[in-house]
Amino acid sequence: MNPDFLLTAELSKKLYHECASSLPIIDYHNHLVVADIASNRKFENIARLWVTSDPYKHRAMRILGICEKYITGDASDFEKFEVWYKSLPRLIGNPLFDWSMMEMSTVFNFDLLPFTDAKSVWDELNSRLSEMTAKDILAKFNIEYSAPCASLVDDLSAFDKNGGLSPSLRGDDLLSPTDELKAKLKSLTGIKIESVSDYFNAVDARLSEFENIGCVFADHALDNGFEYIDDDDKNIERFIGNRSADDGLALRSFILKELMSLYAKHGFTVQLHIGAQRYTSARLRTLAGPAGGYAAIGNTVDVKSVIALLDAVEKETSGLPSILLFTLNPADNAVFATLSGSYSKDGREALVSQGPAWWWCDHYQGIKDMLDNFTVHSVLSTFVGMTTDSRSLLSFVRHDYFRRVVCEWVSEMVSKNRLPDDFTLLADTVSRICYKNAKRILGGKN
Amino acid sequence: MNPDFLLTAELSKKLYHECASSLPIIDYHNHLVVADIASNRKFENIARLWVTSDPYKHRAMRILGICEKYITGDASDFEKFEVWYKSLPRLIGNPLFDWSMMEMSTVFNFDLLPFTDAKSVWDELNSRLSEMTAKDILAKFNIEYSAPCASLVDDLSAFDKNGGLSPSLRGDDLLSPTDELKAKLKSLTGIKIESVSDYFNAVDARLSEFENIGCVFADHALDNGFEYIDDDDKNIERFIGNRSADDGLALRSFILKELMSLYAKHGFTVQLHIGAQRYTSARLRTLAGPAGGYAAIGNTVDVKSVIALLDAVEKETSGLPSILLFTLNPADNAVFATLSGSYSKDGREALVSQGPAWWWCDHYQGIKDMLDNFTVHSVLSTFVGMTTDSRSLLSFVRHDYFRRVVCEWVSEMVSKNRLPDDFTLLADTVSRICYKNAKRILGGKN
Amino acid sequence: MNPDFLLTAELSKKLYHECASSLPIIDYHNHLVVADIASNRKFENIARLWVTSDPYKHRAMRILGICEKYITGDASDFEKFEVWYKSLPRLIGNPLFDWSMMEMSTVFNFDLLPFTDAKSVWDELNSRLSEMTAKDILAKFNIEYSAPCASLVDDLSAFDKNGGLSPSLRGDDLLSPTDELKAKLKSLTGIKIESVSDYFNAVDARLSEFENIGCVFADHALDNGFEYIDDDDKNIERFIGNRSADDGLALRSFILKELMSLYAKHGFTVQLHIGAQRYTSARLRTLAGPAGGYAAIGNTVDVKSVIALLDAVEKETSGLPSILLFTLNPADNAVFATLSGSYSKDGREALVSQGPAWWWCDHYQGIKDMLDNFTVHSVLSTFVGMTTDSRSLLSFVRHDYFRRVVCEWVSEMVSKNRLPDDFTLLADTVSRICYKNAKRILGGKN
Repeated sequence: MNPDFLLTAELSKKLYHECASSLPIIDYHNHLVVADIASNRKFENIARLWVTSDPYKHRAMRILGICEKYITGDASDFEKFEVWYKSLPRLIGNPLFDWSMMEMSTVFNFDLLPFTDAKSVWDELNSRLSEMTAKDILAKFNIEYSAPCASLVDDLSAFDKNGGLSPSLRGDDLLSPTDELKAKLKSLTGIKIESVSDYFNAVDARLSEFENIGCVFADHALDNGFEYIDDDDKNIERFIGNRSADDGLALRSFILKELMSLYAKHGFTVQLHIGAQRYTSARLRTLAGPAGGYAAIGNTVDVKSVIALLDAVEKETSGLPSILLFTLNPADNAVFATLSGSYSKDGREALVSQGPAWWWCDHYQGIKDMLDNFTVHSVLSTFVGMTTDSRSLLSFVRHDYFRRVVCEWVSEMVSKNRLPDDFTLLADTVSRICYKNAKRILGGKN
Repeated sequence: MNPDFLLTAELSKKLYHECASSLPIIDYHNHLVVADIASNRKFENIARLWVTSDPYKHRAMRILGICEKYITGDASDFEKFEVWYKSLPRLIGNPLFDWSMMEMSTVFNFDLLPFTDAKSVWDELNSRLSEMTAKDILAKFNIEYSAPCASLVDDLSAFDKNGGLSPSLRGDDLLSPTDELKAKLKSLTGIKIESVSDYFNAVDARLSEFENIGCVFADHALDNGFEYIDDDDKNIERFIGNRSADDGLALRSFILKELMSLYAKHGFTVQLHIGAQRYTSARLRTLAGPAGGYAAIGNTVDVKSVIALLDAVEKETSGLPSILLFTLNPADNAVFATLSGSYSKDGREALVSQGPAWWWCDHYQGIKDMLDNFTVHSVLSTFVGMTTDSRSLLSFVRHDYFRRVVCEWVSEMVSKNRLPDDFTLLADTVSRICYKNAKRILGGKN
Repeated sequence: MNPDFLLTAELSKKLYHECASSLPIIDYHNHLVVADIASNRKFENIARLWVTSDPYKHRAMRILGICEKYITGDASDFEKFEVWYKSLPRLIGNPLFDWSMMEMSTVFNFDLLPFTDAKSVWDELNSRLSEMTAKDILAKFNIEYSAPCASLVDDLSAFDKNGGLSPSLRGDDLLSPTDELKAKLKSLTGIKIESVSDYFNAVDARLSEFENIGCVFADHALDNGFEYIDDDDKNIERFIGNRSADDGLALRSFILKELMSLYAKHGFTVQLHIGAQRYTSARLRTLAGPAGGYAAIGNTVDVKSVIALLDAVEKETSGLPSILLFTLNPADNAVFATLSGSYSKDGREALVSQGPAWWWCDHYQGIKDMLDNFTVHSVLSTFVGMTTDSRSLLSFVRHDYFRRVVCEWVSEMVSKNRLPDDFTLLADTVSRICYKNAKRILGGKN
């Protein structure tokens, strides 16, 4: 790979090579399989590492009309690799093309271009992979902290606080607590859940355990159509009084508010992922499971609901936790960037801020759009920067991708007099965006 | 006209001149007056061809404050030409300015710049027009296939399958079938409509006739506020049992779903035009008719309604037809591009895909925005490319305009390392976008 | 400050220096404190002029985590200046950084770069300020007309028609008339308000007084969630029959429609500011008041409500007044630009048109986005151009900022062949946008 990939001006090259490229990685939200890391998995072949469990690639191949047999079906691993490899020339302009080049180059020192026959590439990549484990792959990146998601009742034994592998709490299942969840909570905390306060006491106790192993992030998915209503009086006892949990809007709103307060108490930064439309084709859902790559971007956001939630939480004793707002709909970038000026806490930088371009928006165009909006609607130097949100060990190349786009974007802004041509100021901003702001959160400063 | 109009880099010029410019045109959705073509109309004067029936121009002149008398009123054809001609210097930056230059250059070999007195231009253009017929004008373009809209009960005798002139079925009137429509259907198919199944049988029979004369496209306008509800059980017999058609939401939803299934059965590609706000000024509607150039862009889309429709159709026996989604609101480009990954069929490329920038969005900025989003949210090489959606014989220049913008955009992407600098790959993609993907649909491959 | 700030090409420099820079300023909507101008206020220190009453700066400092004590609290003026001054290096990329450089350069001939110690800058700026009054500051700009907001019942004595200082009527309090407002109206007009027609007669009489002192603008804020329903029959007498005003939607809709008709009768141009979400953090609202810098951008617009209002007003006797539509959500730029083609009046240029990038969108990116959309969805040469909407005397530098961005944008468009390379045409368009179109409104031509 060209060391100046994506960098077209002297300034962008200088910023990247002198400032951004060597910074450690803090990946504050991802879906890595922790057991693979803990067990130091050896992958059977390159398809298993690179293709068969990646919904992004499945999606692209479906668009190309490739038969599902070769995507999620009973084709062989080689066949699945082959259709993917042969799809690559059709994918120019899509982030998967760039990521693929970078992944193979960074991890295997293998140049995918020029394209050749699939079998020889399969053999070559498998040969190189055979000498590596999961930890060898991770060692190709300079990872300081990585936060795979875990449910509050998950087994935490595979995490490794000293090794920079701590959970990010995924809180979604806490909003509609099942009997099974309550039983697990009781088993983990010793607290029998017979009232609302029991429930939150048990959650609180368990959050302390998360905190003890280095967790500083919680996450909620507020999907397309998210609404919040502040109507707790009527609902506070319902979900416990009635063993078949009532998942009505008012109840979920109430629980979410209480959880946010607990996160504030524990000093967690909360990541709200807003606007996914996860239900599209029922056929594909049946075929490929709930995260099979067919999700869509939801409507533009209902600002009043987001604000109703934040305002309600701010009124509670602990006030607002630090919050990162992610939007899947790029038309809402200005809305979300601007919200950073609507809440504050003495001494807390970027208390409520926008997270980076997320999921289907995590690509050159999405990163650029997000930066274009954030710099004018918020304060650029407070931007928390990249996280992968990925389930693949290879996805850490996207930090490099992000840093290149940031440096190129900064350079373009300077060329238009929109940023001052002052390398010290620029380098300070770039290092905050690519590392220091995330580090600030790890340090509990947010 | 400068042969390198809109092309500013060596690569864009090379792509355009070596690859894009000579490709045939497939115009898969327009509003041409087929009778004008069949009768090989001679236009009375340049105003009749160029100005008096073009709502885009009417709109621009209204913005300039020109009196309606000179737009749709009783002024003479020369007067109408004159106000239009004199408006042109005020229109720089609007697509009408560029299109006008291209139309006069391509069809009449006449350079509108520098501007001079209206009368001499009127005389000169009329002189050149007097030697041309409708077919002479069309012959200035390399048109392989053109698909003017027709209602299911329209007379089809003016179409010409062998000459590449086939209808695109406009299905809107089928959603609220009037007695008149049902009577015409009976007259055309011999099927008496006394039940729901009679109705769809008659539609089906008529669709076969459309298929026989080369029709492969159907079209529905889902205007601003489009909703879909899946509630067929209650409604299946209502619209036929009650002779005053009930046009309720549930009923229209049901009929739309059934029509989509029939389109799938016939192998049609369905074009859904989403988001127009056709009702604005009641005054202008009275003055200028239902398509008088005063329509607005509607709200951002309700994603759940689009998905509810697609999911319901996918569950039917025939599954989904090929679908092109058009949005009039450019803020929804990412939403629509992303939907291409939410539905699939083995062996069908781009089963559900976004159509090109449409109507008020059909211009340099709109095309660029659409490409910016499509390339990252879908797969660029599957993009179906341009159609005019126009009622003017001159509008075929917009294919040339589109191709120039595509080549320039590709070149810019290469200059940022966002597309690989590999002419073979780039040329392949450009030829797919400008011709081959539409050709694939004609070939029934989608 | 570099005289070519923001201008990177020969053409943009030529357009700016030869055409735009020397044009007078027409600032048709702002929130200046008229009493400060009338009394020719001397500012106590630079903090009072530049920092302590500027919600934009407060907002940016909150994002940086600065304690509220130093923003709106009881810190000294020097302390407030100091935190602001020290924040500046963190604000690169935000419009506040550029505006600050321009304000200090234009008004005090002081270069903020390089940054040094706050105390010496405080002393120096105070020294320069001590020799200036409010009118001295205004004299640094070439202001032909400035229109601070006033309520219909405000004292107008501080305005100065001959000096180009006339009110812009802020009409919001007229929608829910309180007893206090009605009493003031009676006192000002002599009309006792006992019926609906009394109310509008009194408003009408007072509007004549506004007209007499040079007012040609009215303004309404249609905040996030704005709805309009046309339902006057039921409501016409309710607000007067019941002394506790009913502020229901139908009633407010009715009053708004009647006011718009009165504005049309008086030849006013109406500015509709659409989409602000003014309620966010209740905590900050309590702390910093209703305009304290924490407002957010609301949802994308409900097009049907805007159209319902405009269509209802058009049907009234006076027809539509001239209307400028402002959107706070930049995702709606295309929607609002396009609406300019949906209404017209013989001889009135740009009867309904989009206003410039507003409030949180008033910056390089926002201006560019607005121009990108306006040029293709409306007619560029009809664009009314800049107004500050600011409460600061220093904000007139933003006209200079706007003009630089316009000239640079035009030059970029020419470089892509999207505007013709014809200096006469370009200069004509630039001078219309930067001055002549606003002047046309002052002249009652719109």
